[in-house]
Amino acid sequence: MNRREFIRNGALAGAAAAVVSCGSDAGSDTAAKDAVSSELPRVTWRLATSWPKTIDLLQNAPLRLADNMRVMSGGRFTIEVDSATKTKAPLDVFDFVRGNQFQMGHSASYYWKGKDPATLPFTTMPFGLTAQEQGAWFWYGGGVDMMNKVYAKHGMYSFPGGNTGLQMGGWFRKPINSLADLQGLKMRIPGLAGEILARVGVSPTNIPPGELYTALERGVVDAVEWINPYLDLAMGLQKIAKFYYTGWHEPGAETQFLVNRAAFDELPEVYRSMLHVAMKESGFNMLCESMMRNIETWNDFPQTCPDVHVGPLPDDVLLELKRQSGIVNAEIAKESPEFAEVLEHQNQFLKTVAPWTAISEQNYLEVRA
Amino acid sequence: MNRREFIRNGALAGAAAAVVSCGSDAGSDTAAKDAVSSELPRVTWRLATSWPKTIDLLQNAPLRLADNMRVMSGGRFTIEVDSATKTKAPLDVFDFVRGNQFQMGHSASYYWKGKDPATLPFTTMPFGLTAQEQGAWFWYGGGVDMMNKVYAKHGMYSFPGGNTGLQMGGWFRKPINSLADLQGLKMRIPGLAGEILARVGVSPTNIPPGELYTALERGVVDAVEWINPYLDLAMGLQKIAKFYYTGWHEPGAETQFLVNRAAFDELPEVYRSMLHVAMKESGFNMLCESMMRNIETWNDFPQTCPDVHVGPLPDDVLLELKRQSGIVNAEIAKESPEFAEVLEHQNQFLKTVAPWTAISEQNYLEVRA
Repeated sequence: MNRREFIRNGALAGAAAAVVSCGSDAGSDTAAKDAVSSELPRVTWRLATSWPKTIDLLQNAPLRLADNMRVMSGGRFTIEVDSATKTKAPLDVFDFVRGNQFQMGHSASYYWKGKDPATLPFTTMPFGLTAQEQGAWFWYGGGVDMMNKVYAKHGMYSFPGGNTGLQMGGWFRKPINSLADLQGLKMRIPGLAGEILARVGVSPTNIPPGELYTALERGVVDAVEWINPYLDLAMGLQKIAKFYYTGWHEPGAETQFLVNRAAFDELPEVYRSMLHVAMKESGFNMLCESMMRNIETWNDFPQTCPDVHVGPLPDDVLLELKRQSGIVNAEIAKESPEFAEVLEHQNQFLKTVAPWTAISEQNYLEVRA
Repeated sequence: MNRREFIRNGALAGAAAAVVSCGSDAGSDTAAKDAVSSELPRVTWRLATSWPKTIDLLQNAPLRLADNMRVMSGGRFTIEVDSATKTKAPLDVFDFVRGNQFQMGHSASYYWKGKDPATLPFTTMPFGLTAQEQGAWFWYGGGVDMMNKVYAKHGMYSFPGGNTGLQMGGWFRKPINSLADLQGLKMRIPGLAGEILARVGVSPTNIPPGELYTALERGVVDAVEWINPYLDLAMGLQKIAKFYYTGWHEPGAETQFLVNRAAFDELPEVYRSMLHVAMKESGFNMLCESMMRNIETWNDFPQTCPDVHVGPLPDDVLLELKRQSGIVNAEIAKESPEFAEVLEHQNQFLKTVAPWTAISEQNYLEVRA
């Protein structure tokens, strides 16, 4: 379903309800059309995020959306953004929006794997799509339609909410030279990547962001995966762990906007259209902002972290992680036909995009180097 | 200057003029604020593009903008998009918008090098930024501000209008195995890339798109650079030339929106904001669409072009092109201090972004392969 069809299929009742006569400047032949825009209702929506206030890179996307909606609507459409610092419930965003306590959310789809495994692949998959490839999949490869098919069951729409780009593989206190070095390693790495690492002997665990530094310092964990250089260094992880491995598990982590379906369908077309455009703009903006923050951090890296070793995991480790990744995916697919359908769709896209990325982006980066 | 400042600095006269009392649903305390959105003027703008109708990938960006502006404004803001098929003047877009015959344009900044060399780097530069890097430069690295500083002199604003991604190096009838093979070669390749190739013995020429196929077939030229697989194969170039080289000269070609400055400044804030958001959304959308079209074309490539050789130019050729590229840039910089300033700004960004791209995107693509 493309965006236009999507809007057409939405209930038009809201748009009709919003047609109230005003017409003080409307010519008689255009009065009906004018009325739609001149008498837009005042709307106040609440939006809950999964991010603490301090993670500006993620929190900025819904804040930007709210700002744009306010200005574009002439102050009529207000979105009140509550961070997880306020709600104290970062992982309740799904339920908040489903129950319409909040009309919108900003989060990450893979947090909802326990509620519905089919939501998993919409954030990012190990050895999967890059941010740019993911954009093509979402908007032209059918990804957004597939996502909305999954979320319809839960009474919500979901849209891409901005990509953080490639996430780094994590901070380790000791070097990883082979699979043997992963045996018994305690690592903070949640989600799918944790499941995969468990298959090669790692003890994965999840620890709230506020406790990460101390956990690593005190040896509660031997390694920590967080996000990217910009957000990782803000944590101070480089002071403790001196081996920083490059990414494989979240090549293009896309955040998500969640929207309560009934609340959205009730809106006049003008507002639905503004939301569509502004969500997509915010999403693109995050990719640009994320890149910039990482560029700045990475430029200072040789000075700020002179004793940190950076590089990819050894080839045999990566190969085994890729193999295990396929096995874990197949197991989830067995349990959830919906997950299997989304995964197959995304993998098919990955298979077709990889040769083009190789001959364009990758080839060029070699040529430029 | 960020977007908010940008809006603040715009003349607010238009916004004030648009405040007409309506207030049929406005509470007394909010009447003034309501009036801004409830009494937006009807606006019809004209937009000229440099693209023939048939180049859908480029033409779609302004069409999408017009569509979104129409719906978001409840039908009050109309943008009439004229393709170059209609205006018959693809390279007059700059003057059309400067003179306000058209309030907007969609084109490519490097077409205006003859009018102002400082406009050149805003499209793409040989061995320069990729599409994703360019996005970060424009929106967070100061690129958009720099661009508007350049265009202010010409009475216009300019905004990123969508990136086509990496452009391919062109179609050659004979293989290029060394610099010697470029001697005396007649090639359709306009602009800066043409100037650079001229330094290594190529005779560059520009030929209108409609005559490209015949020119290559009849030997008027030995090689043709056009755009990317999707648009190149539509031309049929693969039927004649069997050597297709990868890109170096336009790593992330960004199109541009041109806006007449006075016309934009007169608009109410609501419309200025909608235009900002919708232009950026259209731009991002083009990158996704372009990628998808190339993916599809590239997947069929082994079948549609089984006898075409694809690969990079030889290392020594690329090295010399890079060297000559620096020389040509330095010559232009000598003539135009404004060009020098933009180039220096962009090169500085390139220097800082390259290490991050190498350790994230490039490293990952190797890990995934």
